Amino acid sequence: MRSVRVGPEVFGGSDPVIVAGPCSVENRDMLHQTAMVLSSLGIRLLRGGAYKPRTSPYTFQGLGREGLEILRAVADEFGLSVVSEIMAVEQIASSLEFVDMIQVGARNMHNFPLLSALGRTDRPILLKRGFMATVEEWLLAAEYVVKEGNERVVLCERGIRTFEPWTRNTLDVSAIPLARNLGGYPVIVDPCHASGRRDLIEPLALAGLAAGADGVMIEVHPDPDRALSDGGQSVALGEFGELVARIRSLGARRNPTSGH
Amino acid sequence: MRSVRVGPEVFGGSDPVIVAGPCSVENRDMLHQTAMVLSSLGIRLLRGGAYKPRTSPYTFQGLGREGLEILRAVADEFGLSVVSEIMAVEQIASSLEFVDMIQVGARNMHNFPLLSALGRTDRPILLKRGFMATVEEWLLAAEYVVKEGNERVVLCERGIRTFEPWTRNTLDVSAIPLARNLGGYPVIVDPCHASGRRDLIEPLALAGLAAGADGVMIEVHPDPDRALSDGGQSVALGEFGELVARIRSLGARRNPTSGH
Amino acid sequence: MRSVRVGPEVFGGSDPVIVAGPCSVENRDMLHQTAMVLSSLGIRLLRGGAYKPRTSPYTFQGLGREGLEILRAVADEFGLSVVSEIMAVEQIASSLEFVDMIQVGARNMHNFPLLSALGRTDRPILLKRGFMATVEEWLLAAEYVVKEGNERVVLCERGIRTFEPWTRNTLDVSAIPLARNLGGYPVIVDPCHASGRRDLIEPLALAGLAAGADGVMIEVHPDPDRALSDGGQSVALGEFGELVARIRSLGARRNPTSGH
Amino acid sequence: MRSVRVGPEVFGGSDPVIVAGPCSVENRDMLHQTAMVLSSLGIRLLRGGAYKPRTSPYTFQGLGREGLEILRAVADEFGLSVVSEIMAVEQIASSLEFVDMIQVGARNMHNFPLLSALGRTDRPILLKRGFMATVEEWLLAAEYVVKEGNERVVLCERGIRTFEPWTRNTLDVSAIPLARNLGGYPVIVDPCHASGRRDLIEPLALAGLAAGADGVMIEVHPDPDRALSDGGQSVALGEFGELVARIRSLGARRNPTSGH
Repeated sequence: MRSVRVGPEVFGGSDPVIVAGPCSVENRDMLHQTAMVLSSLGIRLLRGGAYKPRTSPYTFQGLGREGLEILRAVADEFGLSVVSEIMAVEQIASSLEFVDMIQVGARNMHNFPLLSALGRTDRPILLKRGFMATVEEWLLAAEYVVKEGNERVVLCERGIRTFEPWTRNTLDVSAIPLARNLGGYPVIVDPCHASGRRDLIEPLALAGLAAGADGVMIEVHPDPDRALSDGGQSVALGEFGELVARIRSLGARRNPTSGH
Repeated sequence: MRSVRVGPEVFGGSDPVIVAGPCSVENRDMLHQTAMVLSSLGIRLLRGGAYKPRTSPYTFQGLGREGLEILRAVADEFGLSVVSEIMAVEQIASSLEFVDMIQVGARNMHNFPLLSALGRTDRPILLKRGFMATVEEWLLAAEYVVKEGNERVVLCERGIRTFEPWTRNTLDVSAIPLARNLGGYPVIVDPCHASGRRDLIEPLALAGLAAGADGVMIEVHPDPDRALSDGGQSVALGEFGELVARIRSLGARRNPTSGH
Repeated sequence: MRSVRVGPEVFGGSDPVIVAGPCSVENRDMLHQTAMVLSSLGIRLLRGGAYKPRTSPYTFQGLGREGLEILRAVADEFGLSVVSEIMAVEQIASSLEFVDMIQVGARNMHNFPLLSALGRTDRPILLKRGFMATVEEWLLAAEYVVKEGNERVVLCERGIRTFEPWTRNTLDVSAIPLARNLGGYPVIVDPCHASGRRDLIEPLALAGLAAGADGVMIEVHPDPDRALSDGGQSVALGEFGELVARIRSLGARRNPTSGH
Repeated sequence: MRSVRVGPEVFGGSDPVIVAGPCSVENRDMLHQTAMVLSSLGIRLLRGGAYKPRTSPYTFQGLGREGLEILRAVADEFGLSVVSEIMAVEQIASSLEFVDMIQVGARNMHNFPLLSALGRTDRPILLKRGFMATVEEWLLAAEYVVKEGNERVVLCERGIRTFEPWTRNTLDVSAIPLARNLGGYPVIVDPCHASGRRDLIEPLALAGLAAGADGVMIEVHPDPDRALSDGGQSVALGEFGELVARIRSLGARRNPTSGH
């Protein structure tokens, strides 16, 4: 399997990688608080949304380029690497200025012009599975990036749409070994979007790792109840250390031959 | 309900509108044959794909701008209007040159930057439902266009993804009255993508109209078995007249107060 | 295609059959009112639930054998035939006493011992599609009945479970021609359970017929807002005549070669 | 949370319970070989199908009562307890003679007369989730048993039906903490039916346990390639020891406060 390095972290190495940060960059202060806590926990990859794909045009749409500037400045202060999503070819230029790993969200997994354009950049790509996409379609979407020359692709399973109403989506843990073994890409898991429920973040993160995931991506917020987006599925910063400990504990004990 | 005029046709008027043409523009000859037959049947809206969203990067991707030029030239010869899909903001300029109604495909229903940019054009938009989008998300996607000032939106139900394997998708006829009545947009139905089966095109087209649809979009091809894409769900030109007659017959008999 | 006669009606003949009645038999009075209206509209098949499969054990479970007795008595008064659901092998004996056509509900489509036992009776069977069943599984369930010697099977499409939350289920109109043509059974459509919404009963009934269905099953109630079950998806008796007229009008105009 | 004892094992206790055995009891020899290996691995619960719910009436339907006799005799030889599925009220009497824990399969989760009748027995019930049942419907199905007086219910998550074609079903790991925490029942996981693929049994078993499951149910067979049913999703007896070791290793390390 290809491993993908981002800053000091390696996706597809022996230890699970933790990516964390707020759903949206709301302002410099909240991001600074967040980065300080992450740094103290030894987390090196800071995620944060600047361009936000929102179902309704009437909800908060993100800070755009200003959000990326804040992300970069705060990350540099703590020596972190930045992961952030873009939604359009026009946003590639500014993301190349500020971002270490470019995320393609679930709603853009089938945005083929965007995938091809990212294949012509030098940046690692975090490609989320569309909530309506089969594993085969996901691997073919990754091919759009790789075909243009960029092989640094990490996949992220974030739940698929089913009939079950008690969770926002249904985390498809089977997709993790399938995409790793058949596609040869590192795969991480996003328990926050998969469930949309704070009480399920820990069990889903651990389930994903037990199924062989190479890492997790977690939404954290200084004060989830006041978040501008996705507060209900974010971990409070003050409670994040305990979850990180469990993730590392399970990761350390995974038998390296089990699904790896 | 808003009605939307494209050339001589009105979506949301008393008669169902028929949009027809090949999945992909393959060359001038096949399009010319197609347009001649459509014209002889009294069909005024010619669809054809120039930019093709394909699941795999290794399949035919469409002729691009050259395809649009062919579409325009052939349509003009027969006095037809052109409907064609674009997949990215970068393709808007050339589509404005050649296309009368711009289609957004199912895979781009959540491409919010594209929707917003189309809201700043003067062209009617045909917005297909994402194959895993709720009716509410579809109506909110239409809001992205309308919010920027372009109210000429027609919706197209083309099937949703379910567990049933004998059809490519499941046509959701309930979505037609829901989107018409709650959203106030004209809605047409695409029985070809909904089923992926030639034997189901007629029953699904008629079902959609009986549920209140304002029109149908049908893939036709001079020789479906040799089509570069979607041949298995296209009607042969030679058999299209019979289907058109049935569609018009049902449309004429619909009681105008039934769901209208 | 096999046609199936029940009383004076023929499923799979030239005209669509209408089956109607309350979700549950609540008492003699409401059933009597219902039967009188149905009779005056020329409807000959009275449905009514005596044994009710309810998701929760704490909701109304039906009148059982007493409900069947009421059904029979009222039907006889108006010369109607009775269609009623059973849920278990133990209920076959009493249904044979009182019922002309035995219904197997969606939740029992995979109840193989029940299907086999019904295959050893002399009564026509109305087999609803499980809301989780593929068309192939549905046809194989019918085989459980036929294999034991009872070929008088009519299928009923009543919607499948999908991610769409604005309808209770998603009516799968494609299943109608597929099950008719591949299975050779008459197929009717149940727009009430498919949608769970009164405003969609008419468009879905018409869509089913346009797709080739051999009939419809409609829930009616003298006062839907006071119904003990499924009131929100029932037609008020006073408004039923108009719907019956539209159904017959579409049925009469269906070209007999269209999917038939 | 209620814990449920079956023989020497406790569902809902500190250690994960392993239930194992063949999909179908095919004959005495194969069951004897299986029981010997299970016994040597310290497994105390032997599962085996005697009454088989098969989608097609033309495939192997199980040995019926004879299968139960074989199960009992072999289990007694090795001091094991027996878990076996029934499909109908008529099968309760013989299962009470031979079986220690009665399984209700996914296709019967909505068979309310069966659930109520089982609620009047003294035997623990293993209630599988219907493959298209919501968690709420699953908990309400359990209520049908409990309401009649039998509180010894263990739930089993075995995957739900989705659009993903590379697995038979999609294991819904979120359902495990939801059903445990909201329903108060022990929950085990069945990775074989969830995936239908031998290569996914281990990652899904471990994922289920990491999400908090109280045990696993695994199909094993002396020679899976010659199994009369479900061979492709069964573990070969000779390879089962390694999987058991991994399951116990993860179970032992689970922090008892993690979701428990």
